[in-house]
Amino acid sequence: MRYSQLFGKTEKQAPRDYQVVSHQLLYRGGFIRESTAGRYYFLPLGMRVADRIMAVIEAEMDQAGGQKMITPVLHPLELWQETNRTASTGFELMKIKDRRGAQFALGGTAEEMFVELTRRFKLSYKDLPFNLYQFSTKFRDELRARGGLMRVREFTMKDAYSFDRNEVEFKKTYAQMAKTYSRIFTRLGLKTQMVAADNGYIGGDYCHEFVTETPVGESKYFTAGDYCAHAEIAKFKLKPKNLGEKSKSMKKIVAKRGPTMEDGVKLHGLPLWQQIKDLMMVNEKGEFILGVIRGDLGVNEIKLKNVVRAYDLRHATEEEIIKLGSYPGFISPIGLSKKVKVVVDPSLKTIVNAYTGANKKHLDYLNVNYGRDFKADLEADIALAKAGDIAPNGKKLAARRGSEVGNIFQLGYHYTNLMKGSTFTDKDGSQKKYYMGCYGIGIGRTMQTIAEIHHDDQGIIWPESVAPYQVHLINLQVSADSIYDQLVKAGIEVLYDDRDDVSAGVKFADADLIGMPIRLVVSAKTKDKIEWKNRAGKKIELLGLEEVVKRCLKK
Amino acid sequence: MRYSQLFGKTEKQAPRDYQVVSHQLLYRGGFIRESTAGRYYFLPLGMRVADRIMAVIEAEMDQAGGQKMITPVLHPLELWQETNRTASTGFELMKIKDRRGAQFALGGTAEEMFVELTRRFKLSYKDLPFNLYQFSTKFRDELRARGGLMRVREFTMKDAYSFDRNEVEFKKTYAQMAKTYSRIFTRLGLKTQMVAADNGYIGGDYCHEFVTETPVGESKYFTAGDYCAHAEIAKFKLKPKNLGEKSKSMKKIVAKRGPTMEDGVKLHGLPLWQQIKDLMMVNEKGEFILGVIRGDLGVNEIKLKNVVRAYDLRHATEEEIIKLGSYPGFISPIGLSKKVKVVVDPSLKTIVNAYTGANKKHLDYLNVNYGRDFKADLEADIALAKAGDIAPNGKKLAARRGSEVGNIFQLGYHYTNLMKGSTFTDKDGSQKKYYMGCYGIGIGRTMQTIAEIHHDDQGIIWPESVAPYQVHLINLQVSADSIYDQLVKAGIEVLYDDRDDVSAGVKFADADLIGMPIRLVVSAKTKDKIEWKNRAGKKIELLGLEEVVKRCLKK
Repeated sequence: MRYSQLFGKTEKQAPRDYQVVSHQLLYRGGFIRESTAGRYYFLPLGMRVADRIMAVIEAEMDQAGGQKMITPVLHPLELWQETNRTASTGFELMKIKDRRGAQFALGGTAEEMFVELTRRFKLSYKDLPFNLYQFSTKFRDELRARGGLMRVREFTMKDAYSFDRNEVEFKKTYAQMAKTYSRIFTRLGLKTQMVAADNGYIGGDYCHEFVTETPVGESKYFTAGDYCAHAEIAKFKLKPKNLGEKSKSMKKIVAKRGPTMEDGVKLHGLPLWQQIKDLMMVNEKGEFILGVIRGDLGVNEIKLKNVVRAYDLRHATEEEIIKLGSYPGFISPIGLSKKVKVVVDPSLKTIVNAYTGANKKHLDYLNVNYGRDFKADLEADIALAKAGDIAPNGKKLAARRGSEVGNIFQLGYHYTNLMKGSTFTDKDGSQKKYYMGCYGIGIGRTMQTIAEIHHDDQGIIWPESVAPYQVHLINLQVSADSIYDQLVKAGIEVLYDDRDDVSAGVKFADADLIGMPIRLVVSAKTKDKIEWKNRAGKKIELLGLEEVVKRCLKK
Repeated sequence: MRYSQLFGKTEKQAPRDYQVVSHQLLYRGGFIRESTAGRYYFLPLGMRVADRIMAVIEAEMDQAGGQKMITPVLHPLELWQETNRTASTGFELMKIKDRRGAQFALGGTAEEMFVELTRRFKLSYKDLPFNLYQFSTKFRDELRARGGLMRVREFTMKDAYSFDRNEVEFKKTYAQMAKTYSRIFTRLGLKTQMVAADNGYIGGDYCHEFVTETPVGESKYFTAGDYCAHAEIAKFKLKPKNLGEKSKSMKKIVAKRGPTMEDGVKLHGLPLWQQIKDLMMVNEKGEFILGVIRGDLGVNEIKLKNVVRAYDLRHATEEEIIKLGSYPGFISPIGLSKKVKVVVDPSLKTIVNAYTGANKKHLDYLNVNYGRDFKADLEADIALAKAGDIAPNGKKLAARRGSEVGNIFQLGYHYTNLMKGSTFTDKDGSQKKYYMGCYGIGIGRTMQTIAEIHHDDQGIIWPESVAPYQVHLINLQVSADSIYDQLVKAGIEVLYDDRDDVSAGVKFADADLIGMPIRLVVSAKTKDKIEWKNRAGKKIELLGLEEVVKRCLKK
């Protein structure tokens, strides 16, 4: 491709509000342009990178036995109602009606569509397992788009759905997909960590994110030796605090204090960990849930949401708390309305003689003991991990941040339980539900993460596997048309900067910005040789055309 | 691919309401499934055909200098308002709002998006021409979906947009795209005819459909030697009727007749061609338009719509006609309300002493002469051609029907006039608008048209260029695993029917139905040889593996 004919030239500056370097570089290099916030044009150079990423994914998915197909973008809304996913606000679902009144969801993920398709076939155990995948446009009505392609409202996703005979077989599929994902990202030039995470609106019991560590990523997670978990679900061990202390009898006292935990510490002169923290939440049905935890810990709202099986949780308002017969800053599980579901974190078993509010303004309880003075409707881990906490394997948690480029989900029977007729005929003639998993990779976010990981001050340094062209050929004064033609004829993909109205400096800067793996320069100085420089290195070599072709083809 | 593992097996019967053979075959062969009416799943086999079709298109578009990119599916509605296309009902536009209230159109074609992108760049005359294309999902809120993939509501389209410096340069681009399209369809196994057609909601002055002749297609067109035009715009020459006759003075008479043309003929005992036909229409603004034509001809409503530059035309109701001061069945341009725009077809210049209604029930005019007794607001060709009419080149029109697999449009300055800032800097430093064209190919319709053209009673006969697999390998009793492995290793794409629970008859029938170009059979009878049969032929050969590989690779 001649640069003079390429649509989408380089720019010296990115818009001021582009804060992520890879976003700036993809803009400046002429790879992408924003349409409306969170919706992007992929320009010809960007399209070539995306195509190469998709080709790697396709090859590895096929290698793992995947079968490519495609579903419509507009999903019949009935299907989403069948699985209760229209109720989940986490999903940011977009809906549309056609002129005959039929309702559709704009596909954000396609579990329902694949189950709906699969259940039309009379499948036997011989047909299983299989794994179907597609590359298709996905929609998420995000409140905020951020960081270029890192968080968008419309994007191409590779989504795959596996159908197994049972859990044992599925575990093999899941392990195979985990391996396939590692291989895909390695080929794309990304180191990834497999981070245990929350299934969220997708359903199922467990899942893993494939995360590339980078400060511009949105995934917060912890590592501790071989333990690696998303902040949303990370577990840690607690040491007992004052269990040796003799339990005293509970008493109610006047407590003229403000509403914060610190106000309690100050008034009573007792440690923060001895205080009980109470967090009043409301689920999507308007039911109240109280999270109760040791005062020095935070409540992990995702964990809390999961243990009470809510679609959505929000903080109760002060009005709601008062209407319940309690008081903000003085909430307590003791003597609370029976309407409230009390969830107690096991951390309360590491302390005795705790203190907390008494559901009235300026009244506190002292010497409160969990089990004796109040009970839980549900005891469950709802604690928020932080750096330095002790992981289940005994090692210290280190906080990390990264970009989630892929994810794999166990779905189990989540969808097959909800969607009638999603069964196969087993060996013994009985109808059995299939056991499912799903597997996603966002193409745009992967592309930007590659640029984020592989760049220097001058621009992008594309890994060979995804570079839009292998070679960036520059001519200075003399023509390089014949060399361009010969390289192309040899089957090498070349971006040829054939402009005659810009300086050598501009051409070099553009080559560094766009980031092809190899830069070739032809000038009066190089005579019948060609100057070879790898984008990633500093060494400059003078080579004959034959040698250049040989080296390119070897790569 | 082992057939036992393939998702989407063959079926003996298609649903009863599938009337088009290619639709039945694509269903029965396991290529597609309908989601909701007009929205399709492409199963793994269908996806492979679609991928091959797209690969051919991509190669030819690149060869012609096209640059692949992609735009978002959701187009900001403001852009469609900028070009008045939200007013066009012909388009069946789907609209959606996001939760922040931003409005979008679901892309049905992407002229606005490409102009919006292009006008952001400071283009110079050196940057032009260029031609951008994408493969993306398109939406049309059709009232009726029909014939499988022939008329759908959601589909993948290759759409390209060319930007030229001026009309002269554009004509070269247009001619090049016409050639490219011919080459694409030839490679895909389709004979196409380039049919002049109506630009419709796309805008611009002229366009051509690429049509493959087949009775299941929706495009009606005429050919006459080198003349080839869509029924919507076909022109023809008229012979004078009674111009030799002396013109008589007009008179109004009582005419107790019904409202039809035939009623007029019967009452007056005069030929149909001597009667004047009056068709009252209403445009999208509620304005009245009267089409006036010789009685033996039909009004072509598309021609009429175009000459009055309406977005939409509908027939006036009886009530509206009466309210206008006329009467259904007795409409006449003479003495009609001034609110009505009268469009007269030149055919009225081929007759004298015509008869027509008098805008009152049971009153007719006799001896009406156009020019003398009434005038046109606009004289223009609004006549509907029919088989046997004489084309502009003097030859007889033959009526044909076909499937429109592609189209190319001159857009000229249609969009650049409507969208501000869509300019480039010319050599002399002045800002000039770019001159545009656009070029579409529907992937699904192309796929089904190929199946419609290439099938026999047993099933599909895929051309090699688009076959999902080159070879269909069948084993009977003995295993063909090793032959399968060796063929795959040699780089040949093989569908291997490895089932051991079906008869030879079932395997042969399935191979014929699915339609790979080559069928290979391994059985006890073939010993160390392999039976080779082309799907399209009858000849059966016994060949060694080496010979089979050699022949396959040569293809």
